[in-house]
Amino acid sequence: MALPSYIEDFETWQEDFRYRYQISVRFSETDAFGHLNNTNAFVYFEHGRINFFKDTGLVQEWFSKDGETIPVTADLHCDYLKQVYFDEKLDICVKVAHIGNSSVDLHYLIVNEKGEPCMTGRGKIVQVSRETGKPSPWTDSAKGYLQKGF
Amino acid sequence: MALPSYIEDFETWQEDFRYRYQISVRFSETDAFGHLNNTNAFVYFEHGRINFFKDTGLVQEWFSKDGETIPVTADLHCDYLKQVYFDEKLDICVKVAHIGNSSVDLHYLIVNEKGEPCMTGRGKIVQVSRETGKPSPWTDSAKGYLQKGF
Amino acid sequence: MALPSYIEDFETWQEDFRYRYQISVRFSETDAFGHLNNTNAFVYFEHGRINFFKDTGLVQEWFSKDGETIPVTADLHCDYLKQVYFDEKLDICVKVAHIGNSSVDLHYLIVNEKGEPCMTGRGKIVQVSRETGKPSPWTDSAKGYLQKGF
Amino acid sequence: MALPSYIEDFETWQEDFRYRYQISVRFSETDAFGHLNNTNAFVYFEHGRINFFKDTGLVQEWFSKDGETIPVTADLHCDYLKQVYFDEKLDICVKVAHIGNSSVDLHYLIVNEKGEPCMTGRGKIVQVSRETGKPSPWTDSAKGYLQKGF
Repeated sequence: MALPSYIEDFETWQEDFRYRYQISVRFSETDAFGHLNNTNAFVYFEHGRINFFKDTGLVQEWFSKDGETIPVTADLHCDYLKQVYFDEKLDICVKVAHIGNSSVDLHYLIVNEKGEPCMTGRGKIVQVSRETGKPSPWTDSAKGYLQKGF
Repeated sequence: MALPSYIEDFETWQEDFRYRYQISVRFSETDAFGHLNNTNAFVYFEHGRINFFKDTGLVQEWFSKDGETIPVTADLHCDYLKQVYFDEKLDICVKVAHIGNSSVDLHYLIVNEKGEPCMTGRGKIVQVSRETGKPSPWTDSAKGYLQKGF
Repeated sequence: MALPSYIEDFETWQEDFRYRYQISVRFSETDAFGHLNNTNAFVYFEHGRINFFKDTGLVQEWFSKDGETIPVTADLHCDYLKQVYFDEKLDICVKVAHIGNSSVDLHYLIVNEKGEPCMTGRGKIVQVSRETGKPSPWTDSAKGYLQKGF
Repeated sequence: MALPSYIEDFETWQEDFRYRYQISVRFSETDAFGHLNNTNAFVYFEHGRINFFKDTGLVQEWFSKDGETIPVTADLHCDYLKQVYFDEKLDICVKVAHIGNSSVDLHYLIVNEKGEPCMTGRGKIVQVSRETGKPSPWTDSAKGYLQKGF
């Protein structure tokens, strides 16, 4: 298997994940081909990502009504390695790959109960002003939170 | 077939719908039983309902940032008459059944291309204050819009 | 508050639930009004229902490729009591209200972390032949499983 | 703006799309940040892709019960250029970028009513055996259908 461009060595890449969030595949997330519909990979990525941010302490401002910034997705990428079925227990693993001035590049790995990688992914999140939509630099404290996620 | 409590005579009830919004069933809306997943009936009801409100002229305030009110669902009911499959073209029909002080009772009918009823439904929408969450009475002009939907 | 027709006495009704399945509200399940989108009540009902069936021992045939029967929803009803927001932890409670020849009537209750009821609901599930779509009576063993859910 | 790796020259790339499928953004597809939730880009890609396949004549076997093959997503990529809001009318544009032995690389472009690009994307679809999950080469006639999509 050719590796996606964002993974140099799969084993090293996989070992680096420390954050995991467990979900179980809902029936409403399957499709008429009998397996998990591809679009839900990104639902899982988002759910893992936001819990990751929350657990690092980062989200409080984004989700308050008066918060001045929100995170937006700049890009997202998913590689599908293994079909997934109803009722599987999956670990959504998330890590920080790179911290920019107002953005952060996250990597994702979804593994099944046997520990087999089912999906890998990456994507850049940009913090923007709620008002103008323009990029809004991380504060030092936000950077501190993100650095915990390496 | 026993009729749901909100339908007295099916033929009369069905003839009363004047508003229709057409959609086609997406593959991501099917499930591993090979048919449309039941939860999407309510996605279709909402999509039909909001387009109905929009076409009567009612929605502009709800969807502006500074609007003082939003509509919330008080209850929803769906009766499933016929299984629906990927790629079917469906008409979502919506009508006003009753206008309250700050609420409106809507009825729904979803028919396939052969004109066969697949789902029927009803539900009450309440206009509430965005700030307090308390019911907020219709203005006369809003009532006027709703009355067009009988 | 007027009670929905399927609830006689709220306290007694609520105490009867023994099955609970916990979920946490995903960000992708909210909508632009800032709260949980109404359609997800039914996603939660289905997820609770199928886990309930699984935990009573009932689902194995339905989800095997060669199974002869599948469950379909005959109707569904939701009453919304309290707005729900991103990241709330919810208990989806499920119980059997009535067992028919080939159907079962289930009741649902969704409560937040403070124990406040947010949504109540009910709905009939019918077991049908995968081949013909016609109702297929419960076996004695299936009835036995369902009786555990009272 | 740096171009994604799958686009050499934006103008040429954009002009190459001949297939368009129009949708309108549903309220249930927005999130609490007030805009279209990022995960729906992939719902739109899939809906555009399957309609594209259908319109080239390719899908009949995949969606028949006795079909021996199904398409699975090998990877998917989305670049988000512009926030999208409730009720926008969007064109999902799809084209074939490369035909492999049992796979096809598709490109996607989503534009709003003003013709502004909101999302671009790409992804490889592999035809696999329903039974074994192994890649299943295109027939000559399938290749013929796909070639129409360049």
